[in-house]
Amino acid sequence: MAAPVLILVDRPLLGMSGGRRNGDGSSPGFAAADPSAPQLSVFDLGVTRADGVFETVMVSDRNAPALEAHLARLSRSAAALDFPPLDLGVWRDAVAAAVAAHPRVGLLAVKLVLTRGVEGTERPTAWVTAREAPDFTELRRRGLRVITLDRGVPHDLGSRSPWLPAAAKTLSYEVNSAALREAARRGADDAVFVSSDGYVLEATTSSVLLRHGDRFTTPDAGQGGGSSQGIVAGTTVRRAFEVLERLGHTTASEALPVAALTEADGIWLLSSIRRAVPVTRLDRAEREVDHDLTAKLNDELGR
Amino acid sequence: MAAPVLILVDRPLLGMSGGRRNGDGSSPGFAAADPSAPQLSVFDLGVTRADGVFETVMVSDRNAPALEAHLARLSRSAAALDFPPLDLGVWRDAVAAAVAAHPRVGLLAVKLVLTRGVEGTERPTAWVTAREAPDFTELRRRGLRVITLDRGVPHDLGSRSPWLPAAAKTLSYEVNSAALREAARRGADDAVFVSSDGYVLEATTSSVLLRHGDRFTTPDAGQGGGSSQGIVAGTTVRRAFEVLERLGHTTASEALPVAALTEADGIWLLSSIRRAVPVTRLDRAEREVDHDLTAKLNDELGR
Repeated sequence: MAAPVLILVDRPLLGMSGGRRNGDGSSPGFAAADPSAPQLSVFDLGVTRADGVFETVMVSDRNAPALEAHLARLSRSAAALDFPPLDLGVWRDAVAAAVAAHPRVGLLAVKLVLTRGVEGTERPTAWVTAREAPDFTELRRRGLRVITLDRGVPHDLGSRSPWLPAAAKTLSYEVNSAALREAARRGADDAVFVSSDGYVLEATTSSVLLRHGDRFTTPDAGQGGGSSQGIVAGTTVRRAFEVLERLGHTTASEALPVAALTEADGIWLLSSIRRAVPVTRLDRAEREVDHDLTAKLNDELGR
Repeated sequence: MAAPVLILVDRPLLGMSGGRRNGDGSSPGFAAADPSAPQLSVFDLGVTRADGVFETVMVSDRNAPALEAHLARLSRSAAALDFPPLDLGVWRDAVAAAVAAHPRVGLLAVKLVLTRGVEGTERPTAWVTAREAPDFTELRRRGLRVITLDRGVPHDLGSRSPWLPAAAKTLSYEVNSAALREAARRGADDAVFVSSDGYVLEATTSSVLLRHGDRFTTPDAGQGGGSSQGIVAGTTVRRAFEVLERLGHTTASEALPVAALTEADGIWLLSSIRRAVPVTRLDRAEREVDHDLTAKLNDELGR
């Protein structure tokens, strides 16, 4: 596997000045750096307080079909954390530079990170990495054994506690890591969070897609309770909905009680890099998998 | 203010090998490093997933009265995140080295951090920093204006969802930062979290101490819902309880309904560095402050 690429983003926000210069004297707002060298201060609020946001973008054969959706969500996440507006032009160019600098491979995972920066400097830290992604073809065929875990929060957390950055994709992911460890302890591969009042939220690093007959649903991202605090609106789910609608199905984002999960004809976990992975076991129950539809969906999502 | 001191801890866990050598060839498991230089990888799970734990220890005139309590809590937090056992001897020596390397000042904040390490290496990252702490004498006299915020979780989260690292002091602090920003928006200095079912939890970076007559109480740390997920057992509260008991008062850790907060004769927020800071306003109500008792308490806590 090729070495990853690292681009440090000097001017992640609109109106920032300064930043490294390229060999030709230009200053695009970002610059390549050594990914194997330390680059972050131990006083960066991204690590001391997990104060920051991120995105992971799939780049398939140099093509990033959902890049704009990811940039828009990065903006929303940052705004939810009271960051000033992002300079999306700089981010877009930094992503392109990271992809261009990486040897051509089938699938790249490009990660965008923005932190509050080193304490006391009032200047955010930002970077983009590009790494070859593992091949999840076999996982998509084999599927996932999943457990449900009570996330301990009501499904309407976002409206009850509007001060919480409920729908932001923040760096505070310890709960998700703990859920994955609990899943492993119970002989499963992943976990789906449910709310304290009995609604489906999301999985540790993916969105939940359910099928009932010709109707496909995902938990409404307006709700609270998932990843860090709320359900992150899935960019991959949105793309999957477009595919499913073209195939003649109906789709909806709505509040989904746990019964909708247990009674579903099909369950998938959707995320940028793994795409649509079918659930083969939910808690103790084996689940049917529609391999044809899964393959069709993943073909489209990989483009 | 003097430059901070940074000590990288090479062998934070029992039974680890390797690590830098000192000038004399010895390998104590840690080594001084440049705090102004980057030291962390962008692939460290401490920043990409907030997967780690920390402690902040007060060192007053080279004396760290609560060090052992902090080391014990670091061990418990790490165990809650399924880290192997810590080598507390190495950590203790690293703290001593950090304190010794810092110019003598009145008050040092010593921070201990342990992360899951760079993704794929299976080797944790760990460090200790020592920094001169601001003088909070004036803050302790002036007190804090505080708002209450619904944390959105029930007070018994820890027992309802035992897979959550509920009582661990993890790096996933985004909720606390969001709460501080909300407090500032509402013209307050800090926030006290309350549970969705009406119990007092903790403040953003401190424990809550309440007085009713001669009885002093703090929310029971067995409960869930505070900082990252649960209430972190306060080392400073424990020391304050010892002082208060010597003064003839009774003390208790227990489930405290919100009414216990609103009807208290006195409210303090307790943490290692700020010590006991009285609350002068709770939401919209001005609160009485016992300045004599506050001063007495802080004298003892500063020793």
